[in-house]
Amino acid sequence: MQDLIQDVFVNIFSNDHLSVFHDSATLSPPNGPLAFTTDSYVIRPLFFPGGDIGSLAVHGTINDLAMSGAWPYYLSAGFILEEGLELTTLQRVAHSMAKAARTCGVQIVCGDTKVVDRGKGDQIFINTAGIGVIPTNINIRPDHIEPEDRIIISGDLGSHGIAVLSVREGLSFSGNISSDSAPLHEVIADLLNAGVSIHCLRDLTRGGLASALNELAQASKTQLTIEESKIPISDSVRGACEILGLDPLYVANEGRFVMFLPAKEVDRALTVLRKHHIAHGSVDIGEVQQLHSAQHNYPVILQTLIGTSRILDLLSGEQLPRIC
Amino acid sequence: MQDLIQDVFVNIFSNDHLSVFHDSATLSPPNGPLAFTTDSYVIRPLFFPGGDIGSLAVHGTINDLAMSGAWPYYLSAGFILEEGLELTTLQRVAHSMAKAARTCGVQIVCGDTKVVDRGKGDQIFINTAGIGVIPTNINIRPDHIEPEDRIIISGDLGSHGIAVLSVREGLSFSGNISSDSAPLHEVIADLLNAGVSIHCLRDLTRGGLASALNELAQASKTQLTIEESKIPISDSVRGACEILGLDPLYVANEGRFVMFLPAKEVDRALTVLRKHHIAHGSVDIGEVQQLHSAQHNYPVILQTLIGTSRILDLLSGEQLPRIC
Repeated sequence: MQDLIQDVFVNIFSNDHLSVFHDSATLSPPNGPLAFTTDSYVIRPLFFPGGDIGSLAVHGTINDLAMSGAWPYYLSAGFILEEGLELTTLQRVAHSMAKAARTCGVQIVCGDTKVVDRGKGDQIFINTAGIGVIPTNINIRPDHIEPEDRIIISGDLGSHGIAVLSVREGLSFSGNISSDSAPLHEVIADLLNAGVSIHCLRDLTRGGLASALNELAQASKTQLTIEESKIPISDSVRGACEILGLDPLYVANEGRFVMFLPAKEVDRALTVLRKHHIAHGSVDIGEVQQLHSAQHNYPVILQTLIGTSRILDLLSGEQLPRIC
Repeated sequence: MQDLIQDVFVNIFSNDHLSVFHDSATLSPPNGPLAFTTDSYVIRPLFFPGGDIGSLAVHGTINDLAMSGAWPYYLSAGFILEEGLELTTLQRVAHSMAKAARTCGVQIVCGDTKVVDRGKGDQIFINTAGIGVIPTNINIRPDHIEPEDRIIISGDLGSHGIAVLSVREGLSFSGNISSDSAPLHEVIADLLNAGVSIHCLRDLTRGGLASALNELAQASKTQLTIEESKIPISDSVRGACEILGLDPLYVANEGRFVMFLPAKEVDRALTVLRKHHIAHGSVDIGEVQQLHSAQHNYPVILQTLIGTSRILDLLSGEQLPRIC
């Protein structure tokens, strides 16, 4: 185990803070409120078009920090390995994590490895926790969503889920669908630096756009109305979803987010967003509405292509298990 | 899943920072350098005399922070649940975690839950990452160990490992062995407040005292010599180890630590330690020695009861898998 930690993790994740011989990392005190988040990654299979569990574990946790406006600084990495795992598989994942962290400018500063017996795990599970710093006067959160806010999404939906599913099920779709997995902190920082007043952000992971909007409607006690005609979905994702019987509005993304902001901020926001290749497909898809009668449920309404409207409910089960 | 998170986690872990509707927690900026650590817990069975995976996941991560002299403030909690897990089991673990956190004065501020298919996990795995703050001018770390430092351990060894093993293997030993799992931050803070100059601390988890000393000898490039006659081991643990063919010096503890400090500090340190019930069995067990010839290995020497000395090596495999 000590050899494994030294060979794989210390060498691959090497930085000033990471020390295998100490229980915790010591970090400089930050200038501002901390953002702190955690996510476990159990995606199956480990490798998929556009990413793997290692890069996903870096991007996903960075994105959770970015969704509060925080700039990410430090990650922890906890591995649960199944006995019998090929060392080369672990090395490939660790290299991918290290590369993603370097590219994103974050440091993996502490880690832990546990091994479980064969049949009690599934190759590799990874937990990353992340620490970021929130800029002064930034307060991005669900209960800041206001009636008349516009709703923007940062690009086309469903590529991550369909890319993973295609490898898992051995399907091949036209158009080579690749995961949208990407770090979002730079585009969010650019929006904040441009002075865009953001009320709320949410990445569109498990459960996709529909689940995120339902949670946010509930948290902000508003009704959200979006227009189907405005929501970008590629032909290949749409085709794959039809074959598989999936609704792309519920399929997971790992590099897409929804943003709520005042109508007067929309043009400036879209100008900033479209300068980033990971958000060049950003569009305004709808609006927040006040509900005048007191109620317990706050609906998400989809104005359909054929001119009707329907409620986008939360799904009762998970449409796609182990997608992240 | 949303119901599960609301019912089990939000209700049980309730605090000002934890919000199910936001991706990360926002925390006040700390006064001083941060300590940051992570650990995954895969212990089998989930419940054992003296604790369970929930309390262990709180104590273990708090202790990693305490070993750098940090006061623990915030924990994250990431759950990987196996499909088919009984809800009552999860609730029991979550209640235990919440109680341990309350008792220790830390807040669980963010969390995540993933479910894996049956046979791809083992009921419950928990990752906790922790954030603490290190007091000004405190610098406790392995490379601060110096020749002539004394070596203190905080109590008798091996109870955690033997308690877990007894349930796992359905064995019963005389003396009702109960895990030593306990939070160590208060006793460490008392030592620091009393002005005791601590060079290094290490909790004696996986691999026990022998493994910890080997890692620290290597990190500090010193030789460590300890006296077998000074090392407290209860009769029941000693008896169980004899039956099972285990060496108690390699058995895991979850509420014991080793401390390195100048000889002149020992009396004051022992006075503070013995005021805490979790450290009332503290004893000075040996000394740090300089090695005069350059070498690659830094041995840990055990002066045995019969007057000989032997090298305490690192074990090549894990003596007890899934003990934490």
